[in-house]
Amino acid sequence: MKKTLGELAELVGGTVIGDSSVIIFGISKIEEGLPGTISFLANPKYKKYLSETKSSAVLVPKTVTKAAVSLIQVDDSYLALRNIALYFHPPAETSKHFVHPLAHVEKNAFLDPPVHVEAFAYIGKNVQIGKYSHIGAHSYLGNEVKIGECVYIFPGVTILKNCEIGNNVLIHSGTVIGSDGFGYAKDGSKYLKIPQTGNVVIADNVEIGANCTIDRASIGSTRIGKGSKLDNLVQIAHNVEIGENTVIAAQTGISGSTKIGSNVIMGGQVGTAGHIEIGDNTILGGRAGVTKSIPPDSFFFGYPARDHKTMKKREALLNRLPGMYEKIKLLISKSEESKSS
Amino acid sequence: MKKTLGELAELVGGTVIGDSSVIIFGISKIEEGLPGTISFLANPKYKKYLSETKSSAVLVPKTVTKAAVSLIQVDDSYLALRNIALYFHPPAETSKHFVHPLAHVEKNAFLDPPVHVEAFAYIGKNVQIGKYSHIGAHSYLGNEVKIGECVYIFPGVTILKNCEIGNNVLIHSGTVIGSDGFGYAKDGSKYLKIPQTGNVVIADNVEIGANCTIDRASIGSTRIGKGSKLDNLVQIAHNVEIGENTVIAAQTGISGSTKIGSNVIMGGQVGTAGHIEIGDNTILGGRAGVTKSIPPDSFFFGYPARDHKTMKKREALLNRLPGMYEKIKLLISKSEESKSS
Amino acid sequence: MKKTLGELAELVGGTVIGDSSVIIFGISKIEEGLPGTISFLANPKYKKYLSETKSSAVLVPKTVTKAAVSLIQVDDSYLALRNIALYFHPPAETSKHFVHPLAHVEKNAFLDPPVHVEAFAYIGKNVQIGKYSHIGAHSYLGNEVKIGECVYIFPGVTILKNCEIGNNVLIHSGTVIGSDGFGYAKDGSKYLKIPQTGNVVIADNVEIGANCTIDRASIGSTRIGKGSKLDNLVQIAHNVEIGENTVIAAQTGISGSTKIGSNVIMGGQVGTAGHIEIGDNTILGGRAGVTKSIPPDSFFFGYPARDHKTMKKREALLNRLPGMYEKIKLLISKSEESKSS
Repeated sequence: MKKTLGELAELVGGTVIGDSSVIIFGISKIEEGLPGTISFLANPKYKKYLSETKSSAVLVPKTVTKAAVSLIQVDDSYLALRNIALYFHPPAETSKHFVHPLAHVEKNAFLDPPVHVEAFAYIGKNVQIGKYSHIGAHSYLGNEVKIGECVYIFPGVTILKNCEIGNNVLIHSGTVIGSDGFGYAKDGSKYLKIPQTGNVVIADNVEIGANCTIDRASIGSTRIGKGSKLDNLVQIAHNVEIGENTVIAAQTGISGSTKIGSNVIMGGQVGTAGHIEIGDNTILGGRAGVTKSIPPDSFFFGYPARDHKTMKKREALLNRLPGMYEKIKLLISKSEESKSS
Repeated sequence: MKKTLGELAELVGGTVIGDSSVIIFGISKIEEGLPGTISFLANPKYKKYLSETKSSAVLVPKTVTKAAVSLIQVDDSYLALRNIALYFHPPAETSKHFVHPLAHVEKNAFLDPPVHVEAFAYIGKNVQIGKYSHIGAHSYLGNEVKIGECVYIFPGVTILKNCEIGNNVLIHSGTVIGSDGFGYAKDGSKYLKIPQTGNVVIADNVEIGANCTIDRASIGSTRIGKGSKLDNLVQIAHNVEIGENTVIAAQTGISGSTKIGSNVIMGGQVGTAGHIEIGDNTILGGRAGVTKSIPPDSFFFGYPARDHKTMKKREALLNRLPGMYEKIKLLISKSEESKSS
Repeated sequence: MKKTLGELAELVGGTVIGDSSVIIFGISKIEEGLPGTISFLANPKYKKYLSETKSSAVLVPKTVTKAAVSLIQVDDSYLALRNIALYFHPPAETSKHFVHPLAHVEKNAFLDPPVHVEAFAYIGKNVQIGKYSHIGAHSYLGNEVKIGECVYIFPGVTILKNCEIGNNVLIHSGTVIGSDGFGYAKDGSKYLKIPQTGNVVIADNVEIGANCTIDRASIGSTRIGKGSKLDNLVQIAHNVEIGENTVIAAQTGISGSTKIGSNVIMGGQVGTAGHIEIGDNTILGGRAGVTKSIPPDSFFFGYPARDHKTMKKREALLNRLPGMYEKIKLLISKSEESKSS
């Protein structure tokens, strides 16, 4: 696959500065640029590489107007990168129906062809799988699981009974969907398991990272809304509900029955209490420990998480603590002096 | 399956307020109540739904004495919910011996019938599996592993050589038991692996969530005591010992050789140092970072974790920091005024 | 397997104090010592067991000069333990070529014999596996994956397409290598996936714990350097680069494009921002939350992570906050008194 720089510029609606006729075969990192490839600049930290790169061209925001190397100026470097990456690395497509002879498919499962099933996949009773979907090796779809169209299940995913996955969903390896919620009744000092009778419902266009755990509801459904994206090792407890287009970075944990709004952005290693609400459009900084509900359009971080202005002020005061301590000592010694004088 | 409200009240030792003859077919969430089902109220946050729910009945604590909907009053709503959920959703039982032809069972493994083994399960040499146990698809039982009776291994669990699992244990998908502890000797700047020669021993009635990691001991055994419950993505390092009826919420990590007592409650995302002891009946708040041993009957949180009274006081003082800072500035300006006057 | 204490001392270059002729059959923990075994003492916390242990001998540092039990004095107890443990528990070796009939190996995969492949392993197209390597049950090697010599892949590991693993690497169960990085372009409120076109490259002598996630680079390679060791449940985001002989404890997460130096030591549950650099020889305490680059030879902890001296001072001042608050109140009341007087 190859295109001239001019053709790539056309593909992404950008403007060439330099030689439009140079031929591009692929993508490389600006700091490890290779001749014949195009690189990408968005983070200003990497601007220094613009003069050094061995790439044949660089995708840049419009603020960059010249360089030793040919450029494509674009409005949004990430969107342009995405489209160029899609050109050079088109996603695998399921175009012909194939079930590997070493897959296990229960007789009354319904696969709407074409579906691609790899070796050692396990497909339970009454499972439904939509057209163009891919079920990776060592994946497990429990009884009654429903999988939409154009779903890509990477190898080693476990989806337990009754769970429902929408269309155009990607689920990465090692993720478990529909494990039991953590619910017990106490009988003296013993914990008795409360049957977790619900399921997990994942809407269209969701992507879920590797080794995540999404527990089934005790009653009803744990829900992840349309277009939301979860990174790796994320824990979603029973009865959590997540809105649309919400992104959650790695190692975050959401406790039971908490509701996360739409267009929320959560950094990595965030944790929330259970039975709270995080409003729409809220941003939670990495490592935030959320103990109470947060209104929409907030920006919180820290533990216990608070508004970013409050937290920044607190951090500034903590830096001044040594000075405050010295001043108090000085005031006390003065006050004692003045008393004794 | 169905029962009248009166029969359900009898099942849970409760009192009907309203119509005992109404027929109940299942369970639903109070906020998404369905006619013909019973809902459940324990958390006062959800009390508002009592007047709105479309459920035919609600399980309530004795403090709730009337509502538009029929009620069953009980002493302990969680225990009552458990018993009703068990009635409508009885757990799967292994009643007939079945080994899927696509499972791999070494010839000298001993399965005490009835045992249920799903497709693609791997059962190593000299493995012993007790009666009524279930081994899920894609699960791996290494050589010499011992599994008790009535154990339910969900799909995709890995139990490595020599580990021992008691009776009535549940292990959720993706969990790894018996991975090597993180132990090295240093040789100059290189790390040389210390062979991890021990195993993991899990007592009766334990439940372990999804994608947990429980490392084998370097020497001896990593132990999880009777009736303890671990949520998802919990890390238990080598030589850790956990007592009985201890509950550990998701994403918590216990460092090597630490001893956790019995009846301990640990919130999510807790971390502990190695070689310390957490006493019986202690509560660790979510996100606690425990750097030292903690006596029995404590309630600690924060990082470094301290007694909850100390931590609450500190938090209150941190909220007053801006005021303290202003007052110090004022005192200084006054003191300078008085000097210059 | 057995040796006299004198022979074991020779093996580890130590000095016997006591009876050299006692026969040792294995290893036991000092606090659960067994006759006929040797125990190990390094942590002074366990010194009290020296007089009580039922072991026949104890490996000790040179500072311990006598005890009721026979001793081997050594310079480095961990190194000596390692060598004795290796004697009693030699690691499994792949000496004959074996591919289980229930493994799936694509025809054009190249296995350089001897290689050991367990049941239900999946080996994709053009995969290369070096001599003496072991591929555990339920492991997945995607197309074009390269595995070096003497590599041990535990059961249930997923290595996705194009990733490269060096020689003498150990990868524990449930770990996913080459999952997609978490990268999106925004189009209005929607997130569009940016194809993750790179791979993961793991150098020689690396060990990776259980249930880790190591994402492929968006462009180029995510890299883990020679001799580095990762504990369980560690998250390595796309384009991270880790140097040589760096150790990372459990549940730590490294955000995208961050560069970690060589000989770095990271405690458990550490988190770092993306696009930063952690210098060589730096130590990050457990739970550190790193928001900015850190120079070489540093020792940082806390959140936001700072130099340990600064953090210890801060912690000391936080402990004095109640006193400071009282003193300020006193100063104010005095100042008001003096004004009114």
